[in-house]
Amino acid sequence: MIEFWYEFASTYSYPAAMRVERLAEAAGVRVEWRPFLLGPLFHAQQGLTDSPFNAFPVKGRYMWRDMERVCAEEGLPLNHPSQFPRNGLLAARVAIAGLDDGWTPDFSRKVYEANFVADQDISDPGVLAPLIAEAGGAPDEALEAAQSEPVKARLKDHVSLAKARGVFGSPSFITADGELFWGNDRLEQALAWALHHAKATA
Amino acid sequence: MIEFWYEFASTYSYPAAMRVERLAEAAGVRVEWRPFLLGPLFHAQQGLTDSPFNAFPVKGRYMWRDMERVCAEEGLPLNHPSQFPRNGLLAARVAIAGLDDGWTPDFSRKVYEANFVADQDISDPGVLAPLIAEAGGAPDEALEAAQSEPVKARLKDHVSLAKARGVFGSPSFITADGELFWGNDRLEQALAWALHHAKATA
Repeated sequence: MIEFWYEFASTYSYPAAMRVERLAEAAGVRVEWRPFLLGPLFHAQQGLTDSPFNAFPVKGRYMWRDMERVCAEEGLPLNHPSQFPRNGLLAARVAIAGLDDGWTPDFSRKVYEANFVADQDISDPGVLAPLIAEAGGAPDEALEAAQSEPVKARLKDHVSLAKARGVFGSPSFITADGELFWGNDRLEQALAWALHHAKATA
Repeated sequence: MIEFWYEFASTYSYPAAMRVERLAEAAGVRVEWRPFLLGPLFHAQQGLTDSPFNAFPVKGRYMWRDMERVCAEEGLPLNHPSQFPRNGLLAARVAIAGLDDGWTPDFSRKVYEANFVADQDISDPGVLAPLIAEAGGAPDEALEAAQSEPVKARLKDHVSLAKARGVFGSPSFITADGELFWGNDRLEQALAWALHHAKATA
């Protein structure tokens, strides 16, 4: 088992979301999708009120160039969004609402494509509704659930849990024995760890 | 050709320094060693006056754990230094002084081992002297050269050049066509880039 912790505004989480199921399946490892919010962690841990890629332009320039290379290597389309970072709160709540019905992975991939390929505003319920439907969910129901106290509380729990586990960026992967791996480029190592070190508890 | 930009205080630069020649040779790519100082860049670009791994403990905890995994994978010993980061200024000047005589790569690897394996103070000339000798240099001469204006100026030039090229971390790799790769885990991609994209200018 591997937990995939992801924030919808996060750039490197896009290629991670697109490839995590494929690589995990090939390795025989189950994936638990864990949508969370990175903003509260950035603020609490580093005093940031914006993406570090905006706060530190030299890192932002590198990241966008590196994303081009990473996506080209993976055969994934990429269009620099006209707004960055986009607010992923509503999408994260919808993703939480879909967890028990199983459409969260499909929905999440579609949200990343909306943000980083179609350049759509993922904080807009009108953008999310068709993505929910395509993923197999009921849009009206899911968007209503996203505003309910239990779903809001569950997302807050995810954020608290991420913080408690030492997460500070997205994507992050955590194996059954609590080992943390940060970054799309650590997915392979995380899966190898899950196979070789955490098998007993998987 | 690939430029290897490195700061002696940088943790991930240790495994990079130990493997860059081996991988580059296997790929048929020449390595240019480029010692520089990261402190001035951290300060100018991110307002930092300490390592981000100290300024943000959650990132520091992750980095040390990740370094254990990276070094274990590479078969490299690692001992958490009793002081971090250590001041790499003198070692960087010595490394500059050795560039024309060709002992800089060997000396640099020994400095990383002194810092991250033997837990020695790499700002101490008495620590560096035997490392210079082992690498094939003349210690007294090299330590005197390290305090000379031309060597000081050349190190400053390296720092300015790194900044101008968009470097913000160590290790960084730059190919002949100016493509920047950041991090020990990008060495393979940088070499592939050097082979496939920059061959004409290599």
